[in-house]
Amino acid sequence: MENTDLAPLRAQIDVLNLELLALLNQRIEVARKIRDQKRLLGQPLYDPERELKMIAALVQANPGPFPHAAVAHLFSEIARATVEHLEGTERRSLLVSRKAGEADRSFAVGPHRLGDAPVLIAGPCSVESEEQIFSTARFLASRGVRFLRGGAWKPRTSPYEFQGLGKDGLELLVAAARESGMACVTEVVDPRHLELACNADLLQVGTRNMQNFELLKELGRCGRPVLLKRGMASTLDELLNAAEYIVSHGNPHVALCERGVRTFEKQTRNTFDTSAIALLRQLTPLPVLADVSHAAGRRDILAPLGRAALAAGAQGVMLEVHPHPAIARSDAQQQLDFPAFDAFLTALERPLTTLDARAP
Amino acid sequence: MENTDLAPLRAQIDVLNLELLALLNQRIEVARKIRDQKRLLGQPLYDPERELKMIAALVQANPGPFPHAAVAHLFSEIARATVEHLEGTERRSLLVSRKAGEADRSFAVGPHRLGDAPVLIAGPCSVESEEQIFSTARFLASRGVRFLRGGAWKPRTSPYEFQGLGKDGLELLVAAARESGMACVTEVVDPRHLELACNADLLQVGTRNMQNFELLKELGRCGRPVLLKRGMASTLDELLNAAEYIVSHGNPHVALCERGVRTFEKQTRNTFDTSAIALLRQLTPLPVLADVSHAAGRRDILAPLGRAALAAGAQGVMLEVHPHPAIARSDAQQQLDFPAFDAFLTALERPLTTLDARAP
Amino acid sequence: MENTDLAPLRAQIDVLNLELLALLNQRIEVARKIRDQKRLLGQPLYDPERELKMIAALVQANPGPFPHAAVAHLFSEIARATVEHLEGTERRSLLVSRKAGEADRSFAVGPHRLGDAPVLIAGPCSVESEEQIFSTARFLASRGVRFLRGGAWKPRTSPYEFQGLGKDGLELLVAAARESGMACVTEVVDPRHLELACNADLLQVGTRNMQNFELLKELGRCGRPVLLKRGMASTLDELLNAAEYIVSHGNPHVALCERGVRTFEKQTRNTFDTSAIALLRQLTPLPVLADVSHAAGRRDILAPLGRAALAAGAQGVMLEVHPHPAIARSDAQQQLDFPAFDAFLTALERPLTTLDARAP
Amino acid sequence: MENTDLAPLRAQIDVLNLELLALLNQRIEVARKIRDQKRLLGQPLYDPERELKMIAALVQANPGPFPHAAVAHLFSEIARATVEHLEGTERRSLLVSRKAGEADRSFAVGPHRLGDAPVLIAGPCSVESEEQIFSTARFLASRGVRFLRGGAWKPRTSPYEFQGLGKDGLELLVAAARESGMACVTEVVDPRHLELACNADLLQVGTRNMQNFELLKELGRCGRPVLLKRGMASTLDELLNAAEYIVSHGNPHVALCERGVRTFEKQTRNTFDTSAIALLRQLTPLPVLADVSHAAGRRDILAPLGRAALAAGAQGVMLEVHPHPAIARSDAQQQLDFPAFDAFLTALERPLTTLDARAP
Repeated sequence: MENTDLAPLRAQIDVLNLELLALLNQRIEVARKIRDQKRLLGQPLYDPERELKMIAALVQANPGPFPHAAVAHLFSEIARATVEHLEGTERRSLLVSRKAGEADRSFAVGPHRLGDAPVLIAGPCSVESEEQIFSTARFLASRGVRFLRGGAWKPRTSPYEFQGLGKDGLELLVAAARESGMACVTEVVDPRHLELACNADLLQVGTRNMQNFELLKELGRCGRPVLLKRGMASTLDELLNAAEYIVSHGNPHVALCERGVRTFEKQTRNTFDTSAIALLRQLTPLPVLADVSHAAGRRDILAPLGRAALAAGAQGVMLEVHPHPAIARSDAQQQLDFPAFDAFLTALERPLTTLDARAP
Repeated sequence: MENTDLAPLRAQIDVLNLELLALLNQRIEVARKIRDQKRLLGQPLYDPERELKMIAALVQANPGPFPHAAVAHLFSEIARATVEHLEGTERRSLLVSRKAGEADRSFAVGPHRLGDAPVLIAGPCSVESEEQIFSTARFLASRGVRFLRGGAWKPRTSPYEFQGLGKDGLELLVAAARESGMACVTEVVDPRHLELACNADLLQVGTRNMQNFELLKELGRCGRPVLLKRGMASTLDELLNAAEYIVSHGNPHVALCERGVRTFEKQTRNTFDTSAIALLRQLTPLPVLADVSHAAGRRDILAPLGRAALAAGAQGVMLEVHPHPAIARSDAQQQLDFPAFDAFLTALERPLTTLDARAP
Repeated sequence: MENTDLAPLRAQIDVLNLELLALLNQRIEVARKIRDQKRLLGQPLYDPERELKMIAALVQANPGPFPHAAVAHLFSEIARATVEHLEGTERRSLLVSRKAGEADRSFAVGPHRLGDAPVLIAGPCSVESEEQIFSTARFLASRGVRFLRGGAWKPRTSPYEFQGLGKDGLELLVAAARESGMACVTEVVDPRHLELACNADLLQVGTRNMQNFELLKELGRCGRPVLLKRGMASTLDELLNAAEYIVSHGNPHVALCERGVRTFEKQTRNTFDTSAIALLRQLTPLPVLADVSHAAGRRDILAPLGRAALAAGAQGVMLEVHPHPAIARSDAQQQLDFPAFDAFLTALERPLTTLDARAP
Repeated sequence: MENTDLAPLRAQIDVLNLELLALLNQRIEVARKIRDQKRLLGQPLYDPERELKMIAALVQANPGPFPHAAVAHLFSEIARATVEHLEGTERRSLLVSRKAGEADRSFAVGPHRLGDAPVLIAGPCSVESEEQIFSTARFLASRGVRFLRGGAWKPRTSPYEFQGLGKDGLELLVAAARESGMACVTEVVDPRHLELACNADLLQVGTRNMQNFELLKELGRCGRPVLLKRGMASTLDELLNAAEYIVSHGNPHVALCERGVRTFEKQTRNTFDTSAIALLRQLTPLPVLADVSHAAGRRDILAPLGRAALAAGAQGVMLEVHPHPAIARSDAQQQLDFPAFDAFLTALERPLTTLDARAP
């Protein structure tokens, strides 16, 4: 009984909404005629002065209580939507959005696939030597891992830190992956590296470059699958729009990767955002992965984070594995050695605990 | 000279605009009634699910050519403007909100006042000994400081840290303030301490208790002015509502205090939020102060933060001063000794730099 | 071979460490003799003036490169540790810390237990009526749920929002739980409510009161198990110390609850911190739970978050269930109705996906 | 008069203190050698695992009576002081670090200078038309503003938003600045635009590209002054290291710009970090500016934020000014129109309020 008072008011809102909608459609029909006239006259459709006068007139005519500022804002939005539609550039549902009922998208990455059953992507932070990357690839392949990661161009906070082996590192990575039948993943940091980087099977955009839009546009044109990592303080909306840059420039093969966000907590390098995985799985049909090494920044909670990622729906877990983490040239604190990787794998595959609640 | 072919079409647009405007004003009147009903029902005004359904219905009903995405966007903007307007109205109706044209509120605190010209509140983190608090009071009074702070009940992260001298500390604080003609400020952490604490002139609610609503209600009944510090991750809206708890329970004499919020930055204990001061000065007529010691957590930037606070409109600056910070039993890193306080004062009073831009 | 250069230097550090250690032990033996002398003389052990002079002398004598400020700080810490030890209050390993090899702790809560197999805690945000709480209890019990939650005293942002039914709400909650053989959980917000609140089986400390230390001390004395929720921007260290307040005041039966922390992301009410669960499970033997409703602030990702919590080691999941969420007087956006709870339960119990990686 | 029984004991303490001091200084010398080795190896100085093992070994070796917990605490403090000292040394040795006693650095930017008296940088978010940018430049120049900003390549969250006029926009900006005797500032987003962009006087790196290291390296080689904005969740250490990329690649003319960081607060687009300005002014001799428009994301608090920035030591304030903000193609909510800019300027130049405290 409590709620009955809202129903008639809501019905009034619904009627007003439909009247507004009808007017908007009438209005755009008139605007279309104006556009056609202007085309004949050789005039541009967008006329900022006319728009300004129109808005000023409306604000002056507004009796309230709808606020003046909101009137100005809304009619500016109406004008913008009108121009964009008539110029053929209207805001549409994002290409990367999951349409009603749309299934997950999957695609080939070298000899394997992303977006089907969950995968592991593992390997060292940086490619450091032939011995290092080949031994890692062989070890991981022997454990069934199909994706080998390894940085060739390393974005480092300080210019005096190890910057990666570049072209040489990439060649070692590709050769190690080929030998073991794995797909390989490397990070790209500059549009000018792309031609070379396309020797890898999957091109990673790191957290610092999630909104390096010129790089994203080039990746849209490059024909290689892309692994797009979330910026360290980026919203999911920003992540999806960054993916849209790639897809709208021609490349539909993009996977997203949660890797933790910055917070006040000091026990971890970042705060791993499990909700992001759950939400992205709803919002987009693209594959969603989780990089647990960068989220944690420490070795001892990689297994529970990996389990949590899979439990929340992630289609892949990425982590750093190095034959001798103590002498790694980057990320020494968070890489697993081989025995620790085996323990990780065992922990990852333990079943979920049964709830006490369900005993009758 | 206007193009004659466009004029009648533009006139049609103008008519449609006015019809849209009229509908928007009708719509917000209905929304206001819904808001009033919801308030009685204890429901929040903003209902994202209802909004989602409403927009889905409109998109489905849209015959075009106005684009679906633009319909969704515009009605979402209309809903947002409506909620903001009606919540704005609500916020303006809080007792602590600044009404149109309302002047700053000021009130007596012991022998002095808050809310008029900017004041300094200074003193040790904790009252530790008679010698400590009396020497501090005498020193500060000699510099013109009128408010003496000092903790008697200290909320400490660990139960094994110094918890304050309690009743004895309070008595020392009050006696030291009285001797030097100062008003005194102490923190209260428990409704059961209030009777005793009312011997102080100003009762501080610390950051950990900003939403200890039972304490706030008692402070509303206690007849002493209150200094309410912002929670370490509280929004301004939550701070104003916390103040409203006190004022609505009978005590109009509340001052607000920005003291930094938690972020990822590690160079400071908290991130001092200067915008909060600027916004609070608009949103409320209550006095707004700034605790620079807890914001910074270090001594070397107290002066620039104090200057910034005053420049942004703060009506007071609070900081920790101790005769011998190195042996302080709490907050040793951030308290100023007496010579450093003198330097702080000199820096605080330096005029703002002249802009280069203004040379003709 | 790369690392060999560090070994001899580290050996030098190790030797110096042991020499420092020996001196510290000699020093505290001398300090003990001073204490004994002072006891005979009736003098207090802690002598701030002597400490100041001692530190000043050391700073003056310091040739560097050890920084002067660090010298002052370290000797102040040495003096503090000495005084604390000799006064019998030294910082010890926290009572709530997991000792090497220590098993999980579990304890009875009403007719059930926390800390053994994972449990569900479910029920409405607030107790609103007899019909509401009894129907919820019966429904949940029929699904095997053993813990019934329901707020009697509600901490609300605004003083004008529904504040809970208080004593009446508590009585309804207890009666509903008893009828269905469940344990019941309610939030306490004021030390003065405790006597009454102890009719419930488990007393919850909410996120806003995690550092309400006076309340924690009383809970330490009250003899009822406590569910301590993490503050909305509290570090794990602060959470463990808050638990230590309760345990060190006499109550060993504390469970911890992660419930999301505040970040910039707007799609969720808070950011659920799965790492916190993994780390707390290492750091403490106390039961660790997860409140997914307050973390998410929305219904549609409760199941993946609950699964992730269990996968990361949580010993319980808490969530809000209400017969008619749309008319709930608080948290309407995030409560599940009964059919949605059934779907949640089904999703929670689905096994983890098998990794593609492991096919040979 | 000293107590005779205590004197010999105190003398023993003094001797032990000096021995401890000597060991601490020896220890830090060894640690410095380790630091130097690690730098060659590309390893971070701070190694929590080594520290943990070292402390565990000491606790095990500790015969007492110095308490185990105090041993752990003290050696952790010693390690911290050591790392801080040695990292401080490292930081001071960055090219962008302020050396002891080093004066502020200033440099020419087109016909004007950065780093001397505070300046204003103003202009529209994006260059939109000839009329728009020329009228803005003329207006600003008439108010004494010497730096004109305007975006040619706009990094936008969505690929469907206005992306800037590119080359045409840059030409308009430069021409408008030249006509009015102003220096001009534009954002660069791609190393491949640099040759063209060097027609502007000052090249801005936006918040999304602060760690686009390849772009920074090119800017190091390009011979134009750079305005480097802080990343939206970057620490000051990361900002200084980003500047170091530019300077170490050959370009000493870098100015830093605080522009707000991401937090939970929703009333502002970002949280303006005044402490950052105060700390950067200590840490580096490079010019430090403040972008108040992007910090606030709203018009109504630009003046108090600008005042606060100057009060904290900023050497410039940047803000967005547009002839008609309501029709701006980006950042419509935060740009000032001309009359509002005049009001901003008046507010900016009001003197700081006199403290009540100083009346005798």
